[in-house]
Amino acid sequence: MCIFCDIVEGKCPSYKIYEDEDTYVFLSIAKDAVGHTLVIPKKHFESTLDIDNETFMKVMSTVKKVANHYVDNCGYTGVNILNASGVSAGQSVYHLHYHIIPRKEDDGMDWWPQLEETPYDFEKVCEKLKLTK
Amino acid sequence: MCIFCDIVEGKCPSYKIYEDEDTYVFLSIAKDAVGHTLVIPKKHFESTLDIDNETFMKVMSTVKKVANHYVDNCGYTGVNILNASGVSAGQSVYHLHYHIIPRKEDDGMDWWPQLEETPYDFEKVCEKLKLTK
Repeated sequence: MCIFCDIVEGKCPSYKIYEDEDTYVFLSIAKDAVGHTLVIPKKHFESTLDIDNETFMKVMSTVKKVANHYVDNCGYTGVNILNASGVSAGQSVYHLHYHIIPRKEDDGMDWWPQLEETPYDFEKVCEKLKLTK
Repeated sequence: MCIFCDIVEGKCPSYKIYEDEDTYVFLSIAKDAVGHTLVIPKKHFESTLDIDNETFMKVMSTVKKVANHYVDNCGYTGVNILNASGVSAGQSVYHLHYHIIPRKEDDGMDWWPQLEETPYDFEKVCEKLKLTK
């Protein structure tokens, strides 16, 4: 049982913004930002990590389409796009979803996390993370 | 003059993680999270809003590739993916970049912004934002 699969199938109501063959877009009910939007694939994938590349491209194409729509047609001037993939990243619903937060200059929100400075050895970490293939 | 264009062209040093024909990946120097990574297109675009769909797909394909690499090969269990598009969204460098934050269960970070509850009329906002074409 997955709440987002239920939304796609119409078993659970949602404030639908957009839908095409592969993706579904609706308002989050988080009440943390007016117009907080979620973009999901209709097919169930857990996160950015397990989705196939082809379906992921469809999700991101819809993310861009909706972002452009919000700025071009709905009076916004920017967007934040966010995703959490994995328990450790704070993911709460295990059906891949990308958040779009429509923004205006005077909306008073700070959609950037507040974190403490964590100095580290860039060279060492770079060596460890390097992707050579 | 664009600092990220300079990085792509090698005029400015960077901790490079990955590079292919269309995208460049390097460590952010923000020092807010070990391994905070930026994925950018080599060609200059301001944000998710003005990039063409084809190049955007290449950027997001690299985002997924690096995210999978961090989890599959580098000892992480999740990632946060973030983007700010537009001044109002808090964008600071005007060359499109997607942030990848590699995560572990015990890293003690909260990569979700802390926001106040903002109740609103979902139905009304949904009508306003709906994308019908």
